[in-house]
Amino acid sequence: MTLLNETIKRIESLDTEIMEKARERVNNLIKPPGSLGELEELLIQLAGITKGPFPKVDQKAVIVMAADHGVYEEGIAAYPQEVTAVQTALFAKGVTGVCAFAKQAGADVIPVDIGVKENVLVPGVVNKKIKYGTNNITKGPAMTKEEAIRAIEVGIEIAVEQVKKGKNLLATGEMGIGNTTASAAVVSVIANIDPLEVTGQGANYPQEKLVHKANVIRKAVELNKPNREDGIDILAKVGGLEIGGMAGVMLAGAAYRVPVVVDGFISTAAALIACKIEPKVKHFLISSHLSEEKGAATAAELLGLKPMIHLGLRLGEGSGAVLAFHLIEAASYMNNEMITFEEAGIPI
Amino acid sequence: MTLLNETIKRIESLDTEIMEKARERVNNLIKPPGSLGELEELLIQLAGITKGPFPKVDQKAVIVMAADHGVYEEGIAAYPQEVTAVQTALFAKGVTGVCAFAKQAGADVIPVDIGVKENVLVPGVVNKKIKYGTNNITKGPAMTKEEAIRAIEVGIEIAVEQVKKGKNLLATGEMGIGNTTASAAVVSVIANIDPLEVTGQGANYPQEKLVHKANVIRKAVELNKPNREDGIDILAKVGGLEIGGMAGVMLAGAAYRVPVVVDGFISTAAALIACKIEPKVKHFLISSHLSEEKGAATAAELLGLKPMIHLGLRLGEGSGAVLAFHLIEAASYMNNEMITFEEAGIPI
Repeated sequence: MTLLNETIKRIESLDTEIMEKARERVNNLIKPPGSLGELEELLIQLAGITKGPFPKVDQKAVIVMAADHGVYEEGIAAYPQEVTAVQTALFAKGVTGVCAFAKQAGADVIPVDIGVKENVLVPGVVNKKIKYGTNNITKGPAMTKEEAIRAIEVGIEIAVEQVKKGKNLLATGEMGIGNTTASAAVVSVIANIDPLEVTGQGANYPQEKLVHKANVIRKAVELNKPNREDGIDILAKVGGLEIGGMAGVMLAGAAYRVPVVVDGFISTAAALIACKIEPKVKHFLISSHLSEEKGAATAAELLGLKPMIHLGLRLGEGSGAVLAFHLIEAASYMNNEMITFEEAGIPI
Repeated sequence: MTLLNETIKRIESLDTEIMEKARERVNNLIKPPGSLGELEELLIQLAGITKGPFPKVDQKAVIVMAADHGVYEEGIAAYPQEVTAVQTALFAKGVTGVCAFAKQAGADVIPVDIGVKENVLVPGVVNKKIKYGTNNITKGPAMTKEEAIRAIEVGIEIAVEQVKKGKNLLATGEMGIGNTTASAAVVSVIANIDPLEVTGQGANYPQEKLVHKANVIRKAVELNKPNREDGIDILAKVGGLEIGGMAGVMLAGAAYRVPVVVDGFISTAAALIACKIEPKVKHFLISSHLSEEKGAATAAELLGLKPMIHLGLRLGEGSGAVLAFHLIEAASYMNNEMITFEEAGIPI
């Protein structure tokens, strides 16, 4: 059996029995029931994921998948393609946005070259290059089905390694000039809507050229005809290597019962792919922030996630997901540090 | 000159020169300009507040003002009035919601009895009791003008003490059965709208009795006729002692150039009072979360703040403000840990 199939087979549902126990405690903590809102639901979800009433989410890592996109040559990005490689190397130096927030959160940053166009031979960047960027999706599929599966499996491998190191909270991040184009293609296919509705400015692509970007995406979708019920087919035909890698991290999180925090638009596109492959993955995902990117709200809604941070972020890299680590861990502080009405000697 | 007048006199504008320097650096950090959204604006605001390009917000305290409300006898709360005293004592024990999040954030919790109906003689609770709860606002003013000023001055005293201890980030919290009623009165007066529009369930007050709660507020406003341009008059006539205390913390923050984080609905009502007293206070305030309480969005909009956390919280105590400490400090991590394009050797 392949790693992907093995991983899918391991994925079970949330533990509803433990969730009921967790809910009972949360309802009895000294506060009006429900007054800590979605933090209460989050604690119950974490209990269901970890199969324990006092879930721990204190060992954190963000896995940052980096890859390039052949569709870059259609003029869909404002930045030079080389930025992918440069920025990937900078993750290892700890000086980018996600690194700053990871330092604050006490989280590890794991940069992975899963398909950067240049070689990124820098210590600290995990070399899992599948190919030197995807193919131009306006001329054919982004990658073969085998490459798509391999991308997912790279994500699984990296995530399992982190889980084995004791990590109990993972986040997905990415770097890839052109990847809002691939993500908009994925989301438009899964949502069955016109690409223009989810085509945004990415890294400051000019507003007035968005119609061109959407036309490129529409052309790619029409040419490749991805099967919208088949996550791997969508990934192979109009996706990206880093999108596949992130989907793999999410599948592994579900298989090994470690919550995975979804970042912004591109991460959400990966989550949609992961959930097409195995719908139960959704229960192991935690939303973080509502990205400013145009299609982000649509994608989050499609996935059924409610982003908790509204800061108009649109950097990517996993930066918003890492910012949310604190709020997620707050749920466990609520559960561990607050006492119940009974413990306080207050009759309810 | 009174402490209040002295404090108001100290309040100056933000330092726009430093803000321009901060903006220049933020725009040159290795990310697409603007891609860290409101975190970028927050850093610039912090620079303007602290008059330094690398603002520090690492010494945190939440000041929790506790008081009772005479209007309780009109049947506007679901919980017994005694809960105010019980919960105030529990703040000192570190076992409530705000305490849990403060522990996580490395923040001090300073509980202050500014007007609890019972004596709260517990070590760790600062005794600044002005009176044993406000008067019933359906029968006359909540307090005298002198008591209102004293409440504000208590907030100033406590905040100044924290600033002198080296705190560089403050938050306001509160505890007071009945205080969503007083807050809705304050907000409805300042917004010049019918109380029903901002009357919510507070601590699980039944939905079907909201019309009664709004009628009580309307009666109080009609009887007391607060002058909507006079913050102290509004506070004295339909406010609360803890609301005055929180307004004082905000005035002191502005005077001593320390940012103050606004919590939910009640804290926002206090901020509206503080800004009526001195409009420049607004620039020293930072919003935290969008409370689930009905009038919260209206109050935040009135104040011109955009809450960053959307978790459906409605606990009060300053709990949402303390959760936001991490996001606020993230702005300084962005500024301190990220390098500029120039430093990275990348031509823009």
